[in-house]
Amino acid sequence: MTEPRTDVPSGRVQPRFAGLSTFCRFPRLQDVRAEHTPLDWIVYGVPFDGGVTYRPGARFGPRAIRDESQYVKLYHLQHRLLLSDALSLADAGDAPVLPYDCKANTQRVAEWATALPTPGRTKLMAIGGDHSTALANLRATHSRAGAPVGGLALIHFDSHLDTVDSVWDQQYGHASPFRRAIEEGLVNPARMLSIGIKGPLNTPTDLDFARDHGVTILTYERWRREGTTTIDAFLATLEGHPAYITFDIDAIDPAFAPGTGTPSVGGFTSAEALELIRGLSGAERGPRLNLVGADVVEVLPDRDHAGITALLAAHIAFEILCLSATPPSA
Amino acid sequence: MTEPRTDVPSGRVQPRFAGLSTFCRFPRLQDVRAEHTPLDWIVYGVPFDGGVTYRPGARFGPRAIRDESQYVKLYHLQHRLLLSDALSLADAGDAPVLPYDCKANTQRVAEWATALPTPGRTKLMAIGGDHSTALANLRATHSRAGAPVGGLALIHFDSHLDTVDSVWDQQYGHASPFRRAIEEGLVNPARMLSIGIKGPLNTPTDLDFARDHGVTILTYERWRREGTTTIDAFLATLEGHPAYITFDIDAIDPAFAPGTGTPSVGGFTSAEALELIRGLSGAERGPRLNLVGADVVEVLPDRDHAGITALLAAHIAFEILCLSATPPSA
Amino acid sequence: MTEPRTDVPSGRVQPRFAGLSTFCRFPRLQDVRAEHTPLDWIVYGVPFDGGVTYRPGARFGPRAIRDESQYVKLYHLQHRLLLSDALSLADAGDAPVLPYDCKANTQRVAEWATALPTPGRTKLMAIGGDHSTALANLRATHSRAGAPVGGLALIHFDSHLDTVDSVWDQQYGHASPFRRAIEEGLVNPARMLSIGIKGPLNTPTDLDFARDHGVTILTYERWRREGTTTIDAFLATLEGHPAYITFDIDAIDPAFAPGTGTPSVGGFTSAEALELIRGLSGAERGPRLNLVGADVVEVLPDRDHAGITALLAAHIAFEILCLSATPPSA
Amino acid sequence: MTEPRTDVPSGRVQPRFAGLSTFCRFPRLQDVRAEHTPLDWIVYGVPFDGGVTYRPGARFGPRAIRDESQYVKLYHLQHRLLLSDALSLADAGDAPVLPYDCKANTQRVAEWATALPTPGRTKLMAIGGDHSTALANLRATHSRAGAPVGGLALIHFDSHLDTVDSVWDQQYGHASPFRRAIEEGLVNPARMLSIGIKGPLNTPTDLDFARDHGVTILTYERWRREGTTTIDAFLATLEGHPAYITFDIDAIDPAFAPGTGTPSVGGFTSAEALELIRGLSGAERGPRLNLVGADVVEVLPDRDHAGITALLAAHIAFEILCLSATPPSA
Amino acid sequence: MTEPRTDVPSGRVQPRFAGLSTFCRFPRLQDVRAEHTPLDWIVYGVPFDGGVTYRPGARFGPRAIRDESQYVKLYHLQHRLLLSDALSLADAGDAPVLPYDCKANTQRVAEWATALPTPGRTKLMAIGGDHSTALANLRATHSRAGAPVGGLALIHFDSHLDTVDSVWDQQYGHASPFRRAIEEGLVNPARMLSIGIKGPLNTPTDLDFARDHGVTILTYERWRREGTTTIDAFLATLEGHPAYITFDIDAIDPAFAPGTGTPSVGGFTSAEALELIRGLSGAERGPRLNLVGADVVEVLPDRDHAGITALLAAHIAFEILCLSATPPSA
Amino acid sequence: MTEPRTDVPSGRVQPRFAGLSTFCRFPRLQDVRAEHTPLDWIVYGVPFDGGVTYRPGARFGPRAIRDESQYVKLYHLQHRLLLSDALSLADAGDAPVLPYDCKANTQRVAEWATALPTPGRTKLMAIGGDHSTALANLRATHSRAGAPVGGLALIHFDSHLDTVDSVWDQQYGHASPFRRAIEEGLVNPARMLSIGIKGPLNTPTDLDFARDHGVTILTYERWRREGTTTIDAFLATLEGHPAYITFDIDAIDPAFAPGTGTPSVGGFTSAEALELIRGLSGAERGPRLNLVGADVVEVLPDRDHAGITALLAAHIAFEILCLSATPPSA
Repeated sequence: MTEPRTDVPSGRVQPRFAGLSTFCRFPRLQDVRAEHTPLDWIVYGVPFDGGVTYRPGARFGPRAIRDESQYVKLYHLQHRLLLSDALSLADAGDAPVLPYDCKANTQRVAEWATALPTPGRTKLMAIGGDHSTALANLRATHSRAGAPVGGLALIHFDSHLDTVDSVWDQQYGHASPFRRAIEEGLVNPARMLSIGIKGPLNTPTDLDFARDHGVTILTYERWRREGTTTIDAFLATLEGHPAYITFDIDAIDPAFAPGTGTPSVGGFTSAEALELIRGLSGAERGPRLNLVGADVVEVLPDRDHAGITALLAAHIAFEILCLSATPPSA
Repeated sequence: MTEPRTDVPSGRVQPRFAGLSTFCRFPRLQDVRAEHTPLDWIVYGVPFDGGVTYRPGARFGPRAIRDESQYVKLYHLQHRLLLSDALSLADAGDAPVLPYDCKANTQRVAEWATALPTPGRTKLMAIGGDHSTALANLRATHSRAGAPVGGLALIHFDSHLDTVDSVWDQQYGHASPFRRAIEEGLVNPARMLSIGIKGPLNTPTDLDFARDHGVTILTYERWRREGTTTIDAFLATLEGHPAYITFDIDAIDPAFAPGTGTPSVGGFTSAEALELIRGLSGAERGPRLNLVGADVVEVLPDRDHAGITALLAAHIAFEILCLSATPPSA
Repeated sequence: MTEPRTDVPSGRVQPRFAGLSTFCRFPRLQDVRAEHTPLDWIVYGVPFDGGVTYRPGARFGPRAIRDESQYVKLYHLQHRLLLSDALSLADAGDAPVLPYDCKANTQRVAEWATALPTPGRTKLMAIGGDHSTALANLRATHSRAGAPVGGLALIHFDSHLDTVDSVWDQQYGHASPFRRAIEEGLVNPARMLSIGIKGPLNTPTDLDFARDHGVTILTYERWRREGTTTIDAFLATLEGHPAYITFDIDAIDPAFAPGTGTPSVGGFTSAEALELIRGLSGAERGPRLNLVGADVVEVLPDRDHAGITALLAAHIAFEILCLSATPPSA
Repeated sequence: MTEPRTDVPSGRVQPRFAGLSTFCRFPRLQDVRAEHTPLDWIVYGVPFDGGVTYRPGARFGPRAIRDESQYVKLYHLQHRLLLSDALSLADAGDAPVLPYDCKANTQRVAEWATALPTPGRTKLMAIGGDHSTALANLRATHSRAGAPVGGLALIHFDSHLDTVDSVWDQQYGHASPFRRAIEEGLVNPARMLSIGIKGPLNTPTDLDFARDHGVTILTYERWRREGTTTIDAFLATLEGHPAYITFDIDAIDPAFAPGTGTPSVGGFTSAEALELIRGLSGAERGPRLNLVGADVVEVLPDRDHAGITALLAAHIAFEILCLSATPPSA
Repeated sequence: MTEPRTDVPSGRVQPRFAGLSTFCRFPRLQDVRAEHTPLDWIVYGVPFDGGVTYRPGARFGPRAIRDESQYVKLYHLQHRLLLSDALSLADAGDAPVLPYDCKANTQRVAEWATALPTPGRTKLMAIGGDHSTALANLRATHSRAGAPVGGLALIHFDSHLDTVDSVWDQQYGHASPFRRAIEEGLVNPARMLSIGIKGPLNTPTDLDFARDHGVTILTYERWRREGTTTIDAFLATLEGHPAYITFDIDAIDPAFAPGTGTPSVGGFTSAEALELIRGLSGAERGPRLNLVGADVVEVLPDRDHAGITALLAAHIAFEILCLSATPPSA
Repeated sequence: MTEPRTDVPSGRVQPRFAGLSTFCRFPRLQDVRAEHTPLDWIVYGVPFDGGVTYRPGARFGPRAIRDESQYVKLYHLQHRLLLSDALSLADAGDAPVLPYDCKANTQRVAEWATALPTPGRTKLMAIGGDHSTALANLRATHSRAGAPVGGLALIHFDSHLDTVDSVWDQQYGHASPFRRAIEEGLVNPARMLSIGIKGPLNTPTDLDFARDHGVTILTYERWRREGTTTIDAFLATLEGHPAYITFDIDAIDPAFAPGTGTPSVGGFTSAEALELIRGLSGAERGPRLNLVGADVVEVLPDRDHAGITALLAAHIAFEILCLSATPPSA
């Protein structure tokens, strides 16, 4: 592909430290040229943190990630693709939020996202916000992807399983999205893989729901011992099934991602995390990943320093989008 | 008074950088010696920020204020009183909170605080948390003070009036506590004085409710022009009526109090604020202030640096408590 | 005026922590509704710091100010006007910059700004970037205002005079804009007032150029002694002459504005600075100020904390814009 | 074990951001229920940094670690144990300190700790403070453990050997605790293992004392090459001998633990450090570790950011306590 | 004076962000040209904080002040003098310190400083370090000034009186220097003025020693009410008596000087402090101040942000040095 | 070698937190004793960042690195050498810079450095400043090394190739030094090895120039897969050819080196980086490295925290200097 499919401003006119911040300098949705539609992906923010159990502040995550994403360059060295040539992309701004009510907010965001242009064609990447973002975007993605039988496959990077039933009498929050997503049929637990889970946990039974429903749990510790064996096996079973990636930045060690609300010591380095995402392309593991939606969540700028967490989150989003453009043989 | 009425640890054994942090090193409620009861004041925290409209994080305010309060010394140079000799004081820890629901949380905190020991005798100082804290503590104070006819007098330090009807369809939040308190009869608007209000405002009508109900509004700008004339006149009308002080740290300029969620540029210096509080003692303005309750709110540690906001908040709380111990002639 | 003249997003849909950051949530230039044109003001950024003599980094100033400006409310309490009703406003994004060459950059920015819509009608506010920004915007403003005879009047807030001839063999830089502006005939030195100048200086002759050309210098120290006498006298001479306001954030003390490149200890508090700007409206000093352009410069986010400098700069820009909407009797 | 042996507050009543901070929310020593005594472990702080050779400030370490420890959950995923069920634990607050005299302070702390309840049964974990903390706690532990013949075994995580004879004419300081401990017979150097030592060093002879006395030194570099071979061999020799673990947070790379006084670049990641501690349980290496005391030291909060160092230190303390509860087969 | 008496590097060769940091870019003592000797002042650092009662870290003060002092320009706008022309100055580096023993350190520093070149001619300014620095420099100054009868006059800026007898059984520390100085006859208490003292205090008797010995105490609060009346009266009594200025940076409010160890809320702004120092010149108050020594102490860089405290301290030192060069009529 | 060849101050007199900061406490060039000349290495700073494409501020790098280098100890544990015994070293201060013109600055710095004492004998290490520093020091080194035929060998640690032709119409900047160095014949591209290159890139052709000229590119990803094979092969070809090491701190992950201007996520840990440098000694890979010059660049203190980036950079410089002192069999 040599014709750009997405307009990004020339660095000759607008250096990376200049201009209104859209995600990775993609055009705003309303500015996309007609010949670049229908879009491959719409990126949007969910400035919501009303579902957190510890430190709030991720409502400022989308703004921070957009600002730091100005320094994301678009040619992927390993996949050998220029994202703006390969895909048509736009930034739809932030979803409308209801800051005081996680359940209602999830509904509102999901409805707004579902109604974004060209369902069935255009995929959605949500930038959080807390992890309740995932439930909203899963609903929208599930709907727009035609409600695949059995639900979507889910590749989940996180320190926490996020399958708690309720916290402080609320069933909607950042600890519960995948419990709800499984219950709602959005996600097929048999096709769900959680990568990077690590302790300590609140109780001995924290993992029971996921285990009982057949979720594959690759703890961080097991990954250190075994590497990607479990991931490879999981990917091999997907066989083109529509898959969604959700990335909680706290899967990565606080040294690399201090700006988050429920930090968990002893996690992935950023290099390990990027390598894991790249490895999902499917090139060496059989059929290509059929990615239909994604999110990157839980960036809390007030705990960040020098923007390293937001910069990392922006690159993770870039890596995920590139998966969608990567030919199987890449 | 020469016998201490409150036990504070000796600096010989426990330097100010040592020990579990209770507010100003007061004893925990359960550790108070019998001869020090009934208490004059109970201080408690409200680690809640579910009512904010902009930056969350004040849920960590009580912890930060307790830590910085270790460096509050207890002899007041102007009032010439050693607080721990003059009053019996204790730290009751943090109120139980319901992080996701401001209305329910207000109710729960109010009930818990109302039930603290010796109503009618022991006064309550709440350490926020967002400004919805005030509504909870006003309810408890109003009840414990015997529901004075017409409601409590209120001396309110703030950049914002906090009399908004509702935000995002919620009537309980940090923008609304005094609207609710007036509606509930807890506060007598004719005996309410708001000090330090400054703009810009969201709309031309933001001040209407307060003005229509007879609240005295001393804007920061007017204070710069006129000094304490309005305050003096207000105090002269109190004539011993039970009064409550609520102090939103954002009344003070962000240079002195950066750690807050809705900062307002161009406010009081800390010296000005302390002087204003000291001036409430009534010594020179007629009858002594009949203080029956208080709060200090909206400290957001993640935006603070070097703890200066929390240290200032701790001293403001100290100054307010000293008002309660100051003889009229002081 | 009751019809809004500028569209700002509803807080019901887009809270202040949400959405792509434009200056004070004004529409982007390309999004302005036809009925709101011609515009009263265009705000644009100049992400340039290639003219600094000490700490660089102000190139990130426009982005930081836009982000913090989300929390600028638009009803001015003293002037009693809702800015979005009173004026039509837009954000034109950032000027194209040439980061390595201050002279060429000044030329490029000036040309770009001169060509913005409806010269003669629409005024320009530049958000820096370093103080060389002022020279570019003065050129554009001078041209668009019809090149008034003798040059523009200039009200200059700063710790430094910025009338150095050259630094390191360069005549274009943040120490020289007003020397060049006077030489180019853009500014009439007899109608130039510098407010807040304070030492120490590099040499005994630093003030000579300005004094020799008749610039009125109100040092910070003199202001402390004399108040606004000099300003009042200066304003009285303007008699409607087109005037430009340039505000270097380092006029304000580093406690309030740490985020700047050449901090000068012992300056204005933010309250004093805001009061000085408000006082320029002319209401009490004769004819109203005929404001035709402005800039706010030298915000360096990497030295800021909690965004207080950028928040202050955003409010200063708001105050200046309000001057343009204030009726003389306000 | 299904009955809790330690009372920790319910998250329903006291979220992790609420309440007075005790270590990991354990009860204060005076609040322990009788049925939970005698205790397995007492944790106490040593707010002392009078022995440092470079950056002071670790006197604030215990407070910071207590605050961050609120977010330590208590179920260990790998060991499969809920710490509060397995052991009875309490926080004794901070030891009395003598800030100006390291030798006298060591003595005072040791005496106070020795006198804590139920010697012979209850083990002591000290939270520093600088590394002179270890000498005090080793004295107390040695005494309470019945003065085992030849001294205690010592497992020492650190970048530095801390066996310097004297600095600035003082023999008691954070560079000397293990020299003194060996000389005093508290530690058997033949049963001492130092893990993570790395350079550069002050002199070529810095390691001589330890080597001459038979201390096993596993440099960080050797660990990178050889893994845990040396550790395994060392553990195999312990055969149930009473052992003490001392953990200087500077063993971990400054990226993960910036908050320390003598940072050493190029060290363990937090994941590596946690894995090393877990590996000490003895499960796979023969007899279970007979842990009789421990400390975690050298956290300097003023150099930390986002609390990541203190959070890591709290988890390291948790991991060490879990070793004491782990059955050999875990 | 038109010949420079001190060599400072040309900004053409060495910009203010370049070069090894000496105080205000003065030459190192060993680099002073012969024709510039004997020197008027030697500035030296005391990297010692072993006498603090709360936060340590001021040992890094001299380094931070030197670094920030690179941006101190040398022409004093009010006094109209170029310091490097008016005086010959040098930086002697840091005194040798004994970090673990405040009494011994005071002795060692005093001896070293006493022996610096040309006693009787060259005055000493010490840059702290904690306030025990003052005792050392007072001893040296007293000796070098020929031991004036009755001791030196002392002008003392501080929030605290620093006349405590002993803390933790130590009579030498940052709370005691002036008690010792009075006892040793270095300072004449009848000629001692403490400016800016403010509470709260530890005990009701904290001020007794000073009051009993005739020290003039100008509390911050009294200064707010009365202005410089007390200072003027004090200065009028000096009549050329040799005087020493000691400036504890915590006299200034934490908003302006967060980087200090025992911050006291509600103090001077930096503008007020600078004005007070300038006012000591004696120009308008009779005989010129006979300044024979000075110190600026208690800067703690780890609590600072953007270097504003160290920058302020450097300017305070500059202001004090300028006093020494100011003719009475200035 | 037992006689010291470099004077470093005794820690008994000048602790690491004391004294004027020279690099690693080496003497200033003018203070070197005659018997220590000719010098082995001169270290000098280049406080210049006029060539950056994103965040400026590296002009403050030399000062920060000197300050943090006070804590670099000089005995290398792996190489077993005391640097101050093995080599004679001095700090020449900062090169004169021309902040506004990268081309002219490069020329000026190169000329100044070329003229430093004893070309042909004394090697130069430059401390940046931005990466344009390398071009200046390469010119000086090439000249002083006798202009070896074909140019110098270059070992280049970086995330970026820095072989861009021009940016914003400037051919001299931090993206271009090695393009220019190859064109000028200073570096032999066939003997150039770039280690740690990683994406994303601006365009698909970013690597073309280097590849076309025969530069060996070891991407970070390839290093993760293959280890040091490529490096070993490269070193084997050097055969004593004069080699230069250039180290851009952004080769290391932002978690370890946040203080830099163009951070690249997912890079080396500090331990990996140190190991790579140590591995260049040649001990196990054939002939010893013939190191003739070096630089460490792109430290931006305003983005650093707790000085960890500058501390790391200082240690990297130390490691490189040690390579020069390491016997082949070390």
